[in-house]
Amino acid sequence: MIRVAINGYGNLGRGAERAIAKNDDMELVVVFTRRDPSSITTLGAPVIHVEDAAGWVDKVDVCLNCGGSATDLEYQGPATAEFFHTVDSFDTHAKIPSYFAAVDAAAKYTGHLALISTGWDPGLFSMLRVLGDAVLPDGTSTTFWGPGVSQGHSDAIRRIDGVLDARQYTLPVPETVEAVKSGAEVELTTRSMHTRDCYIVAAEGADLDRIAKEVTEMPDYFADYDTTVHFITAEEMAEYHAGLPHGGTVIRKGKTSEGTGQRIGFELELDSNPEFTGSVLAAMGRAVARMAARGESGARTVFDITLADLSPHDPDDLRAHWL
Amino acid sequence: MIRVAINGYGNLGRGAERAIAKNDDMELVVVFTRRDPSSITTLGAPVIHVEDAAGWVDKVDVCLNCGGSATDLEYQGPATAEFFHTVDSFDTHAKIPSYFAAVDAAAKYTGHLALISTGWDPGLFSMLRVLGDAVLPDGTSTTFWGPGVSQGHSDAIRRIDGVLDARQYTLPVPETVEAVKSGAEVELTTRSMHTRDCYIVAAEGADLDRIAKEVTEMPDYFADYDTTVHFITAEEMAEYHAGLPHGGTVIRKGKTSEGTGQRIGFELELDSNPEFTGSVLAAMGRAVARMAARGESGARTVFDITLADLSPHDPDDLRAHWL
Repeated sequence: MIRVAINGYGNLGRGAERAIAKNDDMELVVVFTRRDPSSITTLGAPVIHVEDAAGWVDKVDVCLNCGGSATDLEYQGPATAEFFHTVDSFDTHAKIPSYFAAVDAAAKYTGHLALISTGWDPGLFSMLRVLGDAVLPDGTSTTFWGPGVSQGHSDAIRRIDGVLDARQYTLPVPETVEAVKSGAEVELTTRSMHTRDCYIVAAEGADLDRIAKEVTEMPDYFADYDTTVHFITAEEMAEYHAGLPHGGTVIRKGKTSEGTGQRIGFELELDSNPEFTGSVLAAMGRAVARMAARGESGARTVFDITLADLSPHDPDDLRAHWL
Repeated sequence: MIRVAINGYGNLGRGAERAIAKNDDMELVVVFTRRDPSSITTLGAPVIHVEDAAGWVDKVDVCLNCGGSATDLEYQGPATAEFFHTVDSFDTHAKIPSYFAAVDAAAKYTGHLALISTGWDPGLFSMLRVLGDAVLPDGTSTTFWGPGVSQGHSDAIRRIDGVLDARQYTLPVPETVEAVKSGAEVELTTRSMHTRDCYIVAAEGADLDRIAKEVTEMPDYFADYDTTVHFITAEEMAEYHAGLPHGGTVIRKGKTSEGTGQRIGFELELDSNPEFTGSVLAAMGRAVARMAARGESGARTVFDITLADLSPHDPDDLRAHWL
C-alpha cells in the first residue's frame, strides 16, 4: 500500500481524499492543516497541524500538496519537499521555472522527489499538447476551456460592492471550436474563443445596472469578452450553481504531407473540477512513490512521468491487456 | 541530428519518410528493403538491400521497422534489434507478450533498445486507455474505430471469387458513441458499436448477389456486423476511395464520488493512416535514440516513454512554455 498524506483540506484536498479511496493500492494516512485540527472532520484519516508534519516523515510515502492558491504553494512546495516526496498543482504559468528551481533545490537537498504543476491544466492538457506537437510537428494546437466554473473570475465579481455571491462560467464558443476542428478559416481572439456567463446574488436595494457595468467592463477579467450577467436569488444559487463543473478541449491539427490533414482531439467533461484534479494528483502520487523508491530525487513535471509508473497495473499486465 | 533508417518501404515506410522530413532534428539516412533496391525511388535517401543492413550499424541511431504485416515483424523485430535500436508497430495483440520477450532477448544480447507496438492503436490509444484508467479507476473505457479503411477487411473481400478490388470502411455507430459519452444506458455489442461499408469492383459478368452474400456472411469479418455492399466501377474506386483515412475515439467514463461523473475523451481523425502511424514511429524514434544514448537496453512499449523524451523541445523550454 502506498501511504499518502494530504496537505491542505479545502476543495482540492477533499477531492484528493475521495480519489485515494478509489485506488486499492493507496491509503490516506494523515491530513495536514494550518487550521485547528479539531475543526476538521475527514472521511476517516487523522488530522494533524502542519507544524507537526515532521513527525510523519517515516509514515508517509508521498504527500499531496493541496494548498488552495499559488501563493500557498510557492512557500508550501519547497518547504514540504524537505520532508516528503510531493505532488502539487502549482498553476501560475509565468512562475513555473522559478518554482521548479526552488522545489528542485529543496528536494535534492534531502533526497526527495517532487512532481510540480499537475492536475488537468497544467497537467493532462499539457501532456496532450506536447504529445500532439511531437507527433504532428507541422501543425497548431488550440486549447478551449469550459464549460465550467472559473473560481478566480467568480471571486473577482464577489469583490464588487453590493455583490453577495457570484458564479462565473467560462464557455467555449461552439462555432469557433467546430471551425478549429474542421480546419475552417477562423480568427482566434480572446473574444472569438470564449464567452463568460455570470450568475450574481446582489444585496437588497443594490444598483444592478452599476454592478453589471462593473462586471462587463472589468479589465483583464471581462472587458475583452462577451459577458452576460444574470441576477438570481440566493436560493437559485444554492440549487443550480453549487457544483464546480469544468472541462475543455485540446485540438492539434497538423499536416503530414501536402494536402494530408490529421487531427488529434482531447476532451474533458468534469462534474467536479476539484475531484478530478484530486484524482490526477493521486495517480501522480503513485508514480512519485515508485520513482522515489527507485532512488530518484529533485523536481519533475508530468513530462517526466511514464504511464507504466502512473498505472496500478504491473508491466506484464499492461503489455498483455492494455496495448 | 538523429540518423534514422526505415526498414521496409510500403505505405508505412513512405509515411515514416514524410514524417522524418517534418522533424528538424531527424534525418533519413537509409532505406532497407527486401526487394531489388534499384526498383525503389525514395524522396532522396539511398536504398540498400536489407541483407546489407549490418554495414550501416555505425551510421544509424534508430531504425523504424515498417514491415507490412505482423508476420514480417515477428521475424524482423528480433533480427533488427541485434543490429540497431528499433521502433515498430507490431499489432497482433494476442502475440505481444511473446513478441516482447523475443525482441527483449535479442536487444539485450547486443545492448540495443527496442520499442514495440507503437502507432495509434496499439500506441496513442493504448496510452490514453492507461491514462484514463489511472486517473479514473472507478470507470469504464470504450474504444470506437473509424470512420476509416480497414486494410485487413478490404483484403478479405478481395479474396472472394469475382472481386477485382475492394475497400472496406469501418464506421462507429453515432448513436452508440453519443450514448457512451453521455452515460446513457446502452448495450455494447459488436453490432451496436460498428457498421461496415464495402465498396467493390466486380469482374464483368460476376454474380453480384453471390459476392454480396459471401461478404455479409463471412464469419469473424462481417457476419456479426450490419454490413452494406456497394458495387462501383474501377474509375469510381480510383477517384473516391484512393485514400487510407482512419481514426477513432477512446472514451473513459468514471465516477470520483457518488453522483459525480467525469469524462475523458480522445479522438483521432486521420486523412492518412500510414502517414499518421509513420509520424508516431518517428516521434518514438526520437525517444528511443535519446534513451539508448543514456544506456538503456531491452524491449519497451509506449508505457515506458516520457513526453520529455518524445518532444523535440528541451526540458527548460517544455516547463517554461508547454505546461
